[in-house]
Amino acid sequence: MPAPSQFISYIDSNVDSFIKRLGEAVAIPSISGNGAHRQDVFKMGSWLQNQLSALGVQTKSVDLGRHVMDGQDLPLPPAILGKIGNDPKKKTVLIYGHYDVQPAEKSDGWNTEPFSLVVEKETGLLIGRGSTDDKGPILGWLNVLEAHQKLGLELPVNLCFCFEGMEESGSEGLDELITSEAAKGKDGWFGGVDCVCISDNYWLNTRTPCVTYGLRGLAYFKLTVSGPARDLHSGVFGRTVHEPMTDLILLMSKLVAPDGTILVPGVDDMVSAASAEEKSIYDALDYDIKDVEEAAGARIAISSDKATVLMGRMRSPSLSLHGIEGAFYGAGAKTVIPASVSGKFSIRRTPEKVEPLVISYVQSEFAKLNSKNKLNIENLHGGKPWVSDYKHWNYEAAIKATEAVYKVKPDLTREGGSIPVTLTFAESLGVNVLLLPMGRGDDGAHSTNEKLDKSNFIEGTKLLGTYLYEVGAISA
Amino acid sequence: MPAPSQFISYIDSNVDSFIKRLGEAVAIPSISGNGAHRQDVFKMGSWLQNQLSALGVQTKSVDLGRHVMDGQDLPLPPAILGKIGNDPKKKTVLIYGHYDVQPAEKSDGWNTEPFSLVVEKETGLLIGRGSTDDKGPILGWLNVLEAHQKLGLELPVNLCFCFEGMEESGSEGLDELITSEAAKGKDGWFGGVDCVCISDNYWLNTRTPCVTYGLRGLAYFKLTVSGPARDLHSGVFGRTVHEPMTDLILLMSKLVAPDGTILVPGVDDMVSAASAEEKSIYDALDYDIKDVEEAAGARIAISSDKATVLMGRMRSPSLSLHGIEGAFYGAGAKTVIPASVSGKFSIRRTPEKVEPLVISYVQSEFAKLNSKNKLNIENLHGGKPWVSDYKHWNYEAAIKATEAVYKVKPDLTREGGSIPVTLTFAESLGVNVLLLPMGRGDDGAHSTNEKLDKSNFIEGTKLLGTYLYEVGAISA
Ligand SMILES: [Zn+2]
Ligand SMILES: [Zn+2]
Ligand SMILES: [Zn+2]
Ligand SMILES: [Zn+2]
Repeated sequence: MPAPSQFISYIDSNVDSFIKRLGEAVAIPSISGNGAHRQDVFKMGSWLQNQLSALGVQTKSVDLGRHVMDGQDLPLPPAILGKIGNDPKKKTVLIYGHYDVQPAEKSDGWNTEPFSLVVEKETGLLIGRGSTDDKGPILGWLNVLEAHQKLGLELPVNLCFCFEGMEESGSEGLDELITSEAAKGKDGWFGGVDCVCISDNYWLNTRTPCVTYGLRGLAYFKLTVSGPARDLHSGVFGRTVHEPMTDLILLMSKLVAPDGTILVPGVDDMVSAASAEEKSIYDALDYDIKDVEEAAGARIAISSDKATVLMGRMRSPSLSLHGIEGAFYGAGAKTVIPASVSGKFSIRRTPEKVEPLVISYVQSEFAKLNSKNKLNIENLHGGKPWVSDYKHWNYEAAIKATEAVYKVKPDLTREGGSIPVTLTFAESLGVNVLLLPMGRGDDGAHSTNEKLDKSNFIEGTKLLGTYLYEVGAISA
Repeated sequence: MPAPSQFISYIDSNVDSFIKRLGEAVAIPSISGNGAHRQDVFKMGSWLQNQLSALGVQTKSVDLGRHVMDGQDLPLPPAILGKIGNDPKKKTVLIYGHYDVQPAEKSDGWNTEPFSLVVEKETGLLIGRGSTDDKGPILGWLNVLEAHQKLGLELPVNLCFCFEGMEESGSEGLDELITSEAAKGKDGWFGGVDCVCISDNYWLNTRTPCVTYGLRGLAYFKLTVSGPARDLHSGVFGRTVHEPMTDLILLMSKLVAPDGTILVPGVDDMVSAASAEEKSIYDALDYDIKDVEEAAGARIAISSDKATVLMGRMRSPSLSLHGIEGAFYGAGAKTVIPASVSGKFSIRRTPEKVEPLVISYVQSEFAKLNSKNKLNIENLHGGKPWVSDYKHWNYEAAIKATEAVYKVKPDLTREGGSIPVTLTFAESLGVNVLLLPMGRGDDGAHSTNEKLDKSNFIEGTKLLGTYLYEVGAISA
């Protein structure tokens, strides 16, 4: 069942006011990872709750307690829950999104102020932190609600909302809320939910919409080598003591090869060969080496074979070295021997547990160094991988809606990134979870000059609304 | 010729006022490496010039122009020059010191405010940034001048002073000043100088005074690997592109082994075996593995053989990995693939040039990686190594003075650190240069809780004065 034509024309007629509202949201620098901005995250939560209330949604702000971040004791931003519609004959769709954003400073390399939405006339780009991750998609839902309210249209499904303000910082407190509400069964907040829709990822490329049925998990490690009691001067101590950086760099060099091969024995072997059916999905994807190179901004693809690159992204484990805490990181030349250094790396992982493999490998490699320094390795945090049943009616609805709005068959993708809440919803509610992205593969979430194409914001809003009608048609 | 006893007793009678003056100097945060403190460096220069003038020294503040640091265009702190005495029958001693300091913040791990001199009653420690590097030694010279002025004593030599405010940041502008003044011969500021005395290094341990006749040179490198046009999300791009960090870490791991062996072919080979005479110097040094481990605060000496550790510090080249610019360096877990990363490392080097060896080795190792990323390696800055003739009368005077004040034969040492101006003085003035340290090996210059022992400040002042009398005796 396609969405009514009044809905589609309402969206087309209100582009400017939708963009204005996105501008309001982007202007609140709700950076969850920086304690100095915690009040802005709260402000963003209130803004969102007020918007939902005004659109007829019954809302609730749930206190998630406190946490310690970088030594600061801070209140956690609330989960903003919402409900609209209570018709037992309709399906109930749970919508998830996050209202916090990644840090951004103009000096990071932004061409414009990150917290001031810029509408580029020629290109149709909406540029600003959070435009695509994840304020744009949340506002897509607000647009859908507004259209129905203003047109006096009944929603085709019951809606349940769960918006959090800590996604970019480990989703602290959310799992506990979801599992405790789920444990209450039909009396809990999520009672009666039939399926989940999350709009917080991206198309594979810049052309073809997709629906996403799998996410690689994440295991994040902090590998610390400590030696002297304080930083030392390399002129005085160079070649007299075991230097922690020498040990750390050598250990980090033994984790991954320049071609992406993971050197931790057993990790790459965990992935079985793709089945013929799975292979046919990769072959069918509208995707080219050029797409990844355009998105990366350089001709640095790991292979010239399309399938290898796609499998590298979607099903093989990957290991990335992110940086070092405790070493000299500034400009210029400082002749320090850092006392204690921590290498940060993460593995986008397969369903099996990689942590024990990594930890015992690093320990045995360290033993070979004959160093008098001390080693510590911790698993900072992680997200389990998730794969959904893409033959479920929830996916059928999303695919039909995509075809109706974009006139093409969507790519069926698995993603490299992790959205830990996906698995929590799937496991604790026992319902199908769908990822239905709004933005494109080159949006630059987490990067400088993050953007959302105006057409993705508008057609994406239509897609979300149409998806609800397709779900509604199934329940009819 | 020992110093007159009135001089010695004046020093012993004025300890409190000397410490008070050191407190005034430490209270000016003359950090040359931070543009925000540039005016404090100027303030410190004026303070020093006023002190010298009040003690009868003819002074001159020399503008060294401007420079760009971290993108800021800044005025260079002046060189403060001084002259006292003009007797052609006396030798003329050139004294060098620097009035700028390293950065320091209480939050770095200081137990007290770094820019407020703390006098620890029980231990006799004078704690504060610059106490030992290099304000304490400069104030030692002021103490010597004050004693002679107050006692109406004639100085045994003519003195020429050269104090700079950029030593901790590459001594910008100073070489040009020295070479241009030297080029003027006897009409230049340094005309008639017979020898140089620099007090800006440390004893080998905490017990035995030393005179220092050699410094390892420094070659500082910045090794940059660049790939994508911007930072990428590891969930989306992991195992699809060549990651600059993977390449950089692998290259850095090929520079130095955990036991300190330099892996760049040819660098370790540049050092010939120590002569029997040189070996006898190392054997005679009052030094133990325990000394280096105490100073480092951990049992991490590279070897249990005293000679190996001493040669590691004094004559073998050393390679230290200092850090990475451009990668994630904060606390927490960020899943970034940095777009461009620069490894910083330096070699404390032998007289031969190591730069071409390092650059061609890194380039050939990078070629083996088959990476599509781009490599750049630059030699950021350096200092040539320096070795002096320790049989010169300048050293004889320093050794006699040490024996007179400390009642022990000083260690004859070579240092790992570099003081670039040492070589400039030696080469452009063609005279013998002596390093006569005031502080101990555990003073923590450049580190947290930098200190100078009160006894080193006071006996060190006597040493500087007595040294002048010993030089004066030679000219007699
Ligand atoms: Zn997101
Ligand atoms: Zn995000
Ligand atoms: Zn110094
Ligand atoms: Zn220094």
